[in-house]
Amino acid sequence: MVRHALKKRSKKAGLPPGSLVHIGDKKTEAVTANVLDYAEDHCSETALIEIEQCIVYRDMPSITWVDIEGVHDIQVLEKIGQCFGLHPLVMEDILNTDQRPKIEDYGDYLYIVLRMLGNGSESGDISSEQVSLILGKNFVLSIQEGAKGDVFEPVRTRIRSNKGQIRMLGADYLAYSLIDAVVDNYFIILEKIGERVELLEETLISDPGPQTLHLIHNLKREMIYLRKSVWPLREVVSGMQRRDSALIRESTGIYLRDVYDHTIQVIDTVETFRDMLSGMLDIYLSSISNRTNAVMKVLTVIATIFIPLTWIAGVYGMNFKNMPELSWVYGYPAVWVLMIFVAIGMVIYFKIKKWW
Amino acid sequence: MVRHALKKRSKKAGLPPGSLVHIGDKKTEAVTANVLDYAEDHCSETALIEIEQCIVYRDMPSITWVDIEGVHDIQVLEKIGQCFGLHPLVMEDILNTDQRPKIEDYGDYLYIVLRMLGNGSESGDISSEQVSLILGKNFVLSIQEGAKGDVFEPVRTRIRSNKGQIRMLGADYLAYSLIDAVVDNYFIILEKIGERVELLEETLISDPGPQTLHLIHNLKREMIYLRKSVWPLREVVSGMQRRDSALIRESTGIYLRDVYDHTIQVIDTVETFRDMLSGMLDIYLSSISNRTNAVMKVLTVIATIFIPLTWIAGVYGMNFKNMPELSWVYGYPAVWVLMIFVAIGMVIYFKIKKWW
Amino acid sequence: MVRHALKKRSKKAGLPPGSLVHIGDKKTEAVTANVLDYAEDHCSETALIEIEQCIVYRDMPSITWVDIEGVHDIQVLEKIGQCFGLHPLVMEDILNTDQRPKIEDYGDYLYIVLRMLGNGSESGDISSEQVSLILGKNFVLSIQEGAKGDVFEPVRTRIRSNKGQIRMLGADYLAYSLIDAVVDNYFIILEKIGERVELLEETLISDPGPQTLHLIHNLKREMIYLRKSVWPLREVVSGMQRRDSALIRESTGIYLRDVYDHTIQVIDTVETFRDMLSGMLDIYLSSISNRTNAVMKVLTVIATIFIPLTWIAGVYGMNFKNMPELSWVYGYPAVWVLMIFVAIGMVIYFKIKKWW
Amino acid sequence: MVRHALKKRSKKAGLPPGSLVHIGDKKTEAVTANVLDYAEDHCSETALIEIEQCIVYRDMPSITWVDIEGVHDIQVLEKIGQCFGLHPLVMEDILNTDQRPKIEDYGDYLYIVLRMLGNGSESGDISSEQVSLILGKNFVLSIQEGAKGDVFEPVRTRIRSNKGQIRMLGADYLAYSLIDAVVDNYFIILEKIGERVELLEETLISDPGPQTLHLIHNLKREMIYLRKSVWPLREVVSGMQRRDSALIRESTGIYLRDVYDHTIQVIDTVETFRDMLSGMLDIYLSSISNRTNAVMKVLTVIATIFIPLTWIAGVYGMNFKNMPELSWVYGYPAVWVLMIFVAIGMVIYFKIKKWW
Amino acid sequence: MVRHALKKRSKKAGLPPGSLVHIGDKKTEAVTANVLDYAEDHCSETALIEIEQCIVYRDMPSITWVDIEGVHDIQVLEKIGQCFGLHPLVMEDILNTDQRPKIEDYGDYLYIVLRMLGNGSESGDISSEQVSLILGKNFVLSIQEGAKGDVFEPVRTRIRSNKGQIRMLGADYLAYSLIDAVVDNYFIILEKIGERVELLEETLISDPGPQTLHLIHNLKREMIYLRKSVWPLREVVSGMQRRDSALIRESTGIYLRDVYDHTIQVIDTVETFRDMLSGMLDIYLSSISNRTNAVMKVLTVIATIFIPLTWIAGVYGMNFKNMPELSWVYGYPAVWVLMIFVAIGMVIYFKIKKWW
Ligand SMILES: [Mg+2]
Ligand SMILES: [Mg+2]
Ligand SMILES: [Mg+2]
Ligand SMILES: [Mg+2]
Ligand SMILES: [Mg+2]
Ligand SMILES: [Mg+2]
Ligand SMILES: [Mg+2]
Ligand SMILES: [Mg+2]
Ligand SMILES: [Mg+2]
Ligand SMILES: [Mg+2]
Ligand SMILES: [Mg+2]
Ligand SMILES: [Mg+2]
Ligand SMILES: [Mg+2]
Ligand SMILES: [Mg+2]
Ligand SMILES: [Mg+2]
Ligand SMILES: [Mg+2]
Ligand SMILES: [Mg+2]
Ligand SMILES: [Mg+2]
Ligand SMILES: [Mg+2]
Ligand SMILES: [Mg+2]
Ligand SMILES: [Mg+2]
Ligand SMILES: [Mg+2]
Ligand SMILES: [Mg+2]
Ligand SMILES: [Mg+2]
Ligand SMILES: [Mg+2]
Ligand SMILES: [Mg+2]
Ligand SMILES: [Mg+2]
Ligand SMILES: [Mg+2]
Ligand SMILES: [Mg+2]
Ligand SMILES: [Mg+2]
Ligand SMILES: [Mg+2]
Repeated sequence: MVRHALKKRSKKAGLPPGSLVHIGDKKTEAVTANVLDYAEDHCSETALIEIEQCIVYRDMPSITWVDIEGVHDIQVLEKIGQCFGLHPLVMEDILNTDQRPKIEDYGDYLYIVLRMLGNGSESGDISSEQVSLILGKNFVLSIQEGAKGDVFEPVRTRIRSNKGQIRMLGADYLAYSLIDAVVDNYFIILEKIGERVELLEETLISDPGPQTLHLIHNLKREMIYLRKSVWPLREVVSGMQRRDSALIRESTGIYLRDVYDHTIQVIDTVETFRDMLSGMLDIYLSSISNRTNAVMKVLTVIATIFIPLTWIAGVYGMNFKNMPELSWVYGYPAVWVLMIFVAIGMVIYFKIKKWW
Repeated sequence: MVRHALKKRSKKAGLPPGSLVHIGDKKTEAVTANVLDYAEDHCSETALIEIEQCIVYRDMPSITWVDIEGVHDIQVLEKIGQCFGLHPLVMEDILNTDQRPKIEDYGDYLYIVLRMLGNGSESGDISSEQVSLILGKNFVLSIQEGAKGDVFEPVRTRIRSNKGQIRMLGADYLAYSLIDAVVDNYFIILEKIGERVELLEETLISDPGPQTLHLIHNLKREMIYLRKSVWPLREVVSGMQRRDSALIRESTGIYLRDVYDHTIQVIDTVETFRDMLSGMLDIYLSSISNRTNAVMKVLTVIATIFIPLTWIAGVYGMNFKNMPELSWVYGYPAVWVLMIFVAIGMVIYFKIKKWW
Repeated sequence: MVRHALKKRSKKAGLPPGSLVHIGDKKTEAVTANVLDYAEDHCSETALIEIEQCIVYRDMPSITWVDIEGVHDIQVLEKIGQCFGLHPLVMEDILNTDQRPKIEDYGDYLYIVLRMLGNGSESGDISSEQVSLILGKNFVLSIQEGAKGDVFEPVRTRIRSNKGQIRMLGADYLAYSLIDAVVDNYFIILEKIGERVELLEETLISDPGPQTLHLIHNLKREMIYLRKSVWPLREVVSGMQRRDSALIRESTGIYLRDVYDHTIQVIDTVETFRDMLSGMLDIYLSSISNRTNAVMKVLTVIATIFIPLTWIAGVYGMNFKNMPELSWVYGYPAVWVLMIFVAIGMVIYFKIKKWW
Repeated sequence: MVRHALKKRSKKAGLPPGSLVHIGDKKTEAVTANVLDYAEDHCSETALIEIEQCIVYRDMPSITWVDIEGVHDIQVLEKIGQCFGLHPLVMEDILNTDQRPKIEDYGDYLYIVLRMLGNGSESGDISSEQVSLILGKNFVLSIQEGAKGDVFEPVRTRIRSNKGQIRMLGADYLAYSLIDAVVDNYFIILEKIGERVELLEETLISDPGPQTLHLIHNLKREMIYLRKSVWPLREVVSGMQRRDSALIRESTGIYLRDVYDHTIQVIDTVETFRDMLSGMLDIYLSSISNRTNAVMKVLTVIATIFIPLTWIAGVYGMNFKNMPELSWVYGYPAVWVLMIFVAIGMVIYFKIKKWW
Repeated sequence: MVRHALKKRSKKAGLPPGSLVHIGDKKTEAVTANVLDYAEDHCSETALIEIEQCIVYRDMPSITWVDIEGVHDIQVLEKIGQCFGLHPLVMEDILNTDQRPKIEDYGDYLYIVLRMLGNGSESGDISSEQVSLILGKNFVLSIQEGAKGDVFEPVRTRIRSNKGQIRMLGADYLAYSLIDAVVDNYFIILEKIGERVELLEETLISDPGPQTLHLIHNLKREMIYLRKSVWPLREVVSGMQRRDSALIRESTGIYLRDVYDHTIQVIDTVETFRDMLSGMLDIYLSSISNRTNAVMKVLTVIATIFIPLTWIAGVYGMNFKNMPELSWVYGYPAVWVLMIFVAIGMVIYFKIKKWW
């Protein structure tokens, strides 16, 4: 995943800053733009056909949420950039879909990068989509990388049905709501991973095999990836809290503290999983050692019992003319007795050594 | 444990902030509410039947401690929230019983989350219950997740019997006393863990086995869990010390410093146990290596002594017509002498190599 | 690589500060100096034959970029030092080509050290070249260690063709552009390393061998080397951002923030690769254990089945006169039956133990 | 050690703060109190029979050092507390003898906790005793847990014999002298540990065995314990340096800096030992691997030489009627030649593989 | 090394601060004192016979460098202390030759402790000598522990021959020059270690053995020791930079920044070596595993091929009367065919498993 994103960065090497080149996989065909315009007493929803139409909403006092899905059509993005007066560096970052979460203050607006995790795939692999938020005075632009679907549906429902206080509050509260939706989704992902970790832990005890190692390894890699998305997010949210930008009202601070608290909890859980996986790796490795040990013991017991016996049999299989034992009447039973004594002696020795 | 708590977070994804959904296991059937109202010269105790009754105590100058056990009845909690004017985000956090310890200042009151560890179970597993404290001007609300029993009984006794200075001091001292009771309980838990660690250390020397590994692993996991409860607690207590809230009198500072000191000691002990368990894992793993080594040595000694002897016997078991040794009078005894010499030579070699 | 650079430091021990001794490999024969002088409305390019010529450009208001390739000709460097008034310590550092990235403020100019990574070699080894930047009021000196080629060509093209806004902005923007080009190149290097890491990961699963270990080891060493170049770079860029030097205009700050962001991303990727390589080492080591284990099992199965059988055969190979079984009519088939039973019993035992 | 201390904490759970319960082992029978009262021109020494007598010295301008040995007689301590006006929390901490080093400012006096290490035991185990120092305006109280003997004798001698400047300086200098004596003793302990580490290192090379592992493990545990005593001590001393308490004169600062420096050196040495012990564990573990490897080689060499030979012998021990080789005149010598060739071939193979 | 230094600390336990006891090995017989007195226009050099003579230089405006070699003659040091007014704690530290690098401001002079590494020994062991610098208004005292020779010769030469600007600048520049000489010497030591690391790396690939492990271990220990000398040095130099002592002129700051930069580079290299050595230890350990694995494979292949064959031979070596195969004409060749088939089957099986 990391590699794919990196791979296309080389297309941009040496271009002037602000060059608009799409970095990442093209995830959808059509770029769609939906507008949700609302105030305490109204709410209208429009799917834009011409992107220029969004200019209508820019200067109205109502809160406007423009949600764009897909970043590979550069012309569409350029129009949006002109319409909302975005800096070329912001435009560039929207297109570079391998960003780590960050927040940047451009005076008239805040630029926020988030990583939204997909929760669709059955294989358990985490897919990730970059979401850019532009928080202006009375608008929020959310630009998704383009994977189908998002985690914002509940926010839309709350606006449409006027549930909670979202329609009464400003654009900063909308931005908070979107960040909160992204973080809430992390909990769902973590629950799924938690189930996999638990399952793995049971397998580890009941039937560990080379496959177990690969499952531990995969989960560890996903944890490396998750950490990269989550640790910077903490700084993003605390950055919003501390910032003395006029764009974030004081009353929103309490909600940001709440989402900050959730972020800490997500980090805590990721770190707990990391610790648990490390412990599981230790368990796995020592269970292999244990098994080798057990196999060794059986080999040793069988070999050390029968090797002397075989030698005894060999001795009396020799063809010397002059071997008096061979003519004894009780020679053969005597050898049997000898062999049984040797065998029992060995077994007792092993019992004492606790090897059996 | 971690997983269970997480599991239910998904119920809440996308709900507006402050939505009251109970997250966690339902630990008790009935939600109970007890009021302890006291001042220097009086002390009354009531079990509330209707939660609205607590409003009586709110505005009285005496100190009121409302102790609620059980959070799954949302209506009861809503009434309490209205009665004491709690913010929806506080209400939400009370219901999310997988919080890490934290402190939040809401102006009129402080909201404190603690994790109270259970000390009942014989199996040694640590159970944990979330306790929310609301410290207002002249009241303390303690809302327990609902597991039977708590660690606050000694505090109740001190209030009832007017022991110590608790009845002379304010609500902040009561909050301190409750936090102190939670931390004191950590010492008891750590003593029990300390006994298990010590027992394990003896087993490790006397009779290590795969079971030992699992015990080490379990203790390590409990340490991961304990750390998560204890480290943030330190920040909670130092947060109370530093805070210039009118709710915490200066005279209480000295007691908070004391409980902070205890918290540090708890952390210190947890970290010591972690270090010791790491050392024990090393010991365990190398004791397996040592044992494999010992088994190897026996196999090697037996095999390398008898394999050549068996070959000698095999040689004289061959059926060649023309084997002069077979007809020698002292052929057979000579072979015995040869075999004994070979065996003794091998044994001396092993003695020199210190393998026997 | 590290060693080579270090090796020559001893030549300088005890010399007064500012002594000009070239430390490092001589990478090119001829020292070349190219001048790009430009303003909004013009752009001229000259290859200097006599280094003294550069004095012409020093006091002109147009922006002058003097790009020098090769540092082993000390006389040339001394002339440049005199021409631009460089401090002897700067001159010394230009010649010590094993510097870590740093920034130093000398009042009239900033001295910046970067490490430019080569991307030419097929073997995958990273070569590195020291680049010193001197940012003055209206000039930038870039002094490369001397390996053929650099990563600045796109910047030159942008100046020549007046693409982007580079001709409109000052020397600080030119310095930023050069740093940006160096960092952009890191992404290309990281892509290549990412491919090697991915390839290695596949090998690790399909066909791990001692060679795999050496590949992991080599990549780990390269990561150690990369970290040393990248971590200090972060401080360099953030140092430029924070610095209240008149040489860096406020408008450039936004671009420095962008390149800082890229630096963080490079560091992030390097750390991710490090974590992945550690995980791969664990996988490799346990795959060796697994293989040893598998070999052990085969040995054990074969040996423990045939050793008892061989003993049985040995018993009936003994030459005792009085061995009644030998005369039995069904003695021979009975021994076969016995041997088959023993063998089947062993196999069943192994199946139960899951060793087969 | 840790466990013992912890064990008794549970006696105190739930008691009001300042409850006087002795936590720890009772180390001595009689509680003794000695007073050293001195000024520049006099010095008197008294063994108190009634603890109330110490009140005489409290208000005199001369410096008074009350040294109490034993904390299990709570009544004695209560009287001291009343006499010097100590806070109940201080009294409590004096009795809790499992404190980590700390410093607390109570306005009229500073409360300092130290851990004094015993240097008597031959077994090498470190015993530890808590020392509480109360530094008032013109007195120092030192309350030792009660193990026989202390490290303060040289300080007493210096006071008695008026050596150095101790009688000319204040109570803060006396407190410094006591802390310095404790730290000086750490050096002695570390020297002893250093000898054990060095001895262990020699054993590790000459004759490593399971015992070596336990010695490494024990030293590691002692290092864990020492770290816990030493790291907080650094904060104690730097806390005294920074504090703007009237109790510490500026002229004492230079001496505190000196003892701080020693503390750092102690920490440095502890960390060095930790690093060395980690390295020794690695060496030990790989020396086991090496030995297993050596044993394996002998087994392999012997087995792979004789197993084919034994098979050859077995072939010519078969009883087929029609085996022409058996009737050949040179059949038997030919088999010997064959066997010798096979053996020599194997040996050469092993020489090439460097296994022999 | 560490141990030796520590060993003698116990001689001092309990002595009053400032007691002059020599701690460390006596490294030279005679204590020598050389004076270099210089100004822009003159330079005189004297070997002091009576140490009191140095008082002549103290109050002259010229810069005086008194270089003392050997600290075991306490009377000599006491005279120097009186002459230059040194604090007893400084005198004590000069004699305690196991100090870590530090800087202390005593108002009239700065006291600096450095560790000068020896570069003479062929065995590769690093020897270390403590150097104390006293930087006063117009003098520098350098007091070496006493090992023959030092790294200051180039500085002396520069003063004598008036090379560079050293004679034009003050005592602070002289102190800088001495520190710079010490740090320059670290590069030489690191080059030598780098060569040993590189050599070791080659051995690791070509012919690893138990000796390799000890070499890695020794280098790791030296790195532990070097870190202890180098990390505090960084703080010393940055301490000099930050200090607003009148003793350090602003113009010297730029040179201190240069030596600080070198210190960072030394630390960087030490850390790189540490990382490389860790990687080499991993390689070594897994090369042992690999070898054990290879030995196992040969044993397994030989044993599993011949053990069944030996059994077959054993079967037809049995002496049953009634064994029809024995009388078959082609019985013997048939057994040969069987045995060859079994052997070939085994070999094919191993080829498939890639064990051969
Ligand atoms: Mg670019
Ligand atoms: Mg990222
Ligand atoms: Mg989407
Ligand atoms: Mg949320
Ligand atoms: Mg990160
Ligand atoms: Mg919340
Ligand atoms: Mg490990
Ligand atoms: Mg929510
Ligand atoms: Mg938690
Ligand atoms: Mg409860
Ligand atoms: Mg307590
Ligand atoms: Mg945590
Ligand atoms: Mg206390
Ligand atoms: Mg130099
Ligand atoms: Mg470097
Ligand atoms: Mg170049
Ligand atoms: Mg860039
Ligand atoms: Mg670094
Ligand atoms: Mg960008
Ligand atoms: Mg208590
Ligand atoms: Mg402690
Ligand atoms: Mg004592
Ligand atoms: Mg001392
Ligand atoms: Mg600690
Ligand atoms: Mg000192
Ligand atoms: Mg002393
Ligand atoms: Mg040191
Ligand atoms: Mg010397
Ligand atoms: Mg230098
Ligand atoms: Mg250090
Ligand atoms: Mg330099």
